[in-house]
Amino acid sequence: LRIELLLTGDELTSGAVSDSNGGWLASRIAALGERVARFTVLGDDLEAVAGELRAAASRADLVVVSGGLGPTLDDLTVDAACAAFERRAVVDPAQLERIRQRFASLGRQLTPNNERQARVPEGAEVLGNDFGTATAFVVRHGGCELWFLPGVPRELRKLAEQKLLSGLRERLEAEGVFRCLRVVKCVRIAESHLDHAIAPLLQRHPHVRYGTIAAFPEVQARFVAEGGSADAAKTRCEALEREVRQVLGAVAYGGEADTLASAALGAIRSKGWKVAVAESLTAGLLSAQLADVPGASDLLLGGMATYATGLKERWLGVSPELLAREGPVSEACARAMAEGILARSGADVAVALTGLAGPGGDGSEHPPGTVFAAVAGGGAHTHVVRERWLLGRNEVRRMAAALGLDLLRRRALGLPA
Amino acid sequence: LRIELLLTGDELTSGAVSDSNGGWLASRIAALGERVARFTVLGDDLEAVAGELRAAASRADLVVVSGGLGPTLDDLTVDAACAAFERRAVVDPAQLERIRQRFASLGRQLTPNNERQARVPEGAEVLGNDFGTATAFVVRHGGCELWFLPGVPRELRKLAEQKLLSGLRERLEAEGVFRCLRVVKCVRIAESHLDHAIAPLLQRHPHVRYGTIAAFPEVQARFVAEGGSADAAKTRCEALEREVRQVLGAVAYGGEADTLASAALGAIRSKGWKVAVAESLTAGLLSAQLADVPGASDLLLGGMATYATGLKERWLGVSPELLAREGPVSEACARAMAEGILARSGADVAVALTGLAGPGGDGSEHPPGTVFAAVAGGGAHTHVVRERWLLGRNEVRRMAAALGLDLLRRRALGLPA
Repeated sequence: LRIELLLTGDELTSGAVSDSNGGWLASRIAALGERVARFTVLGDDLEAVAGELRAAASRADLVVVSGGLGPTLDDLTVDAACAAFERRAVVDPAQLERIRQRFASLGRQLTPNNERQARVPEGAEVLGNDFGTATAFVVRHGGCELWFLPGVPRELRKLAEQKLLSGLRERLEAEGVFRCLRVVKCVRIAESHLDHAIAPLLQRHPHVRYGTIAAFPEVQARFVAEGGSADAAKTRCEALEREVRQVLGAVAYGGEADTLASAALGAIRSKGWKVAVAESLTAGLLSAQLADVPGASDLLLGGMATYATGLKERWLGVSPELLAREGPVSEACARAMAEGILARSGADVAVALTGLAGPGGDGSEHPPGTVFAAVAGGGAHTHVVRERWLLGRNEVRRMAAALGLDLLRRRALGLPA
Repeated sequence: LRIELLLTGDELTSGAVSDSNGGWLASRIAALGERVARFTVLGDDLEAVAGELRAAASRADLVVVSGGLGPTLDDLTVDAACAAFERRAVVDPAQLERIRQRFASLGRQLTPNNERQARVPEGAEVLGNDFGTATAFVVRHGGCELWFLPGVPRELRKLAEQKLLSGLRERLEAEGVFRCLRVVKCVRIAESHLDHAIAPLLQRHPHVRYGTIAAFPEVQARFVAEGGSADAAKTRCEALEREVRQVLGAVAYGGEADTLASAALGAIRSKGWKVAVAESLTAGLLSAQLADVPGASDLLLGGMATYATGLKERWLGVSPELLAREGPVSEACARAMAEGILARSGADVAVALTGLAGPGGDGSEHPPGTVFAAVAGGGAHTHVVRERWLLGRNEVRRMAAALGLDLLRRRALGLPA
């Protein structure tokens, strides 16, 4: 299938907002073993959108369009679809009623603006929307199916899961195409080393496509197998995946549904542990990433962001002598921070990060980009890892948070740091 | 000028990475008063990239291409440009020497792979790269200028600032086009209310274009004025901007270069204060946003993420009676957290956040999406704001962090919360 995405909105072409719908749709479509051939991003411009709809319909089998279904005059996707495919816009009575009821349940009155959101191109298949006001719909033109979804990410995702992606899977299976995607997510390995480790395994697995992807601060290996049935595809994919995981060992932390934070928390949960965090240069980034994981509140007790050196003493009990002798960016300070937060939180395991995000140095011998990460507790000695990255300030902080999460994961799994 | 962006890489079309180059380039181009007409995102596919280069060159005056200049075989932008415009690829001796020296300074040996990065299409204007290995270049075809930049965001941004954007400004001014962009960034106001406040002012400013943009959790008003000179454009834009800021009052927190965190820290710096943070549902998000601001280390002492209720007692001194009586999601708890962190950090001003990110409730009377934010110190009584948002878990946390930053900003500026 040739699949394209068309993302609309002046907020995207002006750079005020970074699109998240395109990447999300592409990753869900990749999970079905299909590829997105092209994304196009256009502003709220009727002629440009209409022209691109026609062009995309002539090239592709499936086009997913996001945005421009709101109540205001710059929401012109319905009009663009009508112009592109020579249809009239009609108000769908069932959708008008749905919108009216939605407003009533929120205690609000329908305005003429909102009635616009019940308009669809004549002959469209109306999908409605259980998650918001805008009406989603499908237009068929020639051999192409065009799905029109709202630009609000939450609504787009729910509608896509509910209708688009399940339908796409069924369509592929009806055509006898059975695929399986496996992603092996890795951390603390360079993409070239990942490729070097995997390449020798591939010749015994001719039915599996393979690629590596840099997804800073991580790297991924992706495998897609085809087969005559869902089981056959899965068996082929998993056979290679097993070999890959064996070769990679500890750097392979999870699969498609995992994040490094969810993998770390999963390992901690399996031990029955609670976790706490002490952060200097990252100032809360690591603890916020842990809290992003649904269910984190059972496992994450909390964290201290001791950005000022004085708070490392006052809150974490790092000794003034140690700070004077070794400095706040040191192996000894990372160790004392991890042991301090462990004692003060009552957690079973703790991680601490200190370092120099840069761009400037701190007058010590350590160059910018130097980070010390310590893991304490979990029935083993405190261990400190030192890294140095030739990266910008924010990249150093993101790498440091990833390193801290990985140390937690490894300790809970009994792997060396 | 018609400007287009072409962003390449399988990591984008597979959804493994969300593009950040497109949005950044678009916002910098918008700052010159120009608009990006279209972004196109393509995978590492020679024919597709070559075809799009030809199509974009026929439509646009300026095309910015990112990605595909790396050392590996899937880096095929040079070959695509050669195919598109019927040129040979040639190794540029000066660039080869630049890459060799770069490797030598890092103590690494050049491999044949890396020599690929000195290749450019014959006749291209070679830009080089002071920030990385890949060689940037410009190809002119018909009336179109195509700029080829590396996909690594740091390198792309530095090269664009150094060469592309300054050249674009000069080109516009040489054509007698003088423009001024002003962005008024706002928080805690709906886009429709913002528009309603600004619309009546516009008719007295016919030379200024205007639009609003939702940039969750904020909204922006953007104004572009044209004039016969840089000064004339600026005077026109600033006249409207002044009126807008007067009408909007406290919700307008800053301009294009500001973030809510930088505006809050700027206000705190002007008072000579230090700041500390206590977070429950956001678990470090607010303190990490403060630490993102360059120079934050002079002002941010630190923060505590007291995710578990027990740590609100132990670390922040919230009384067990209060927690039993009012619960951790309450006005009283937010107040006690803010006063607790103020006392324990030695800061001059502090903010605290507690709430229910959802999706589930906590058994209390508060529905998911309820947040209490408290600001303490700065020579005024502790003040608590209660909000409720009908949003998903992560949106609630992002809105809560924005509310907390805004309370800090308002207190330092002497504005009501």
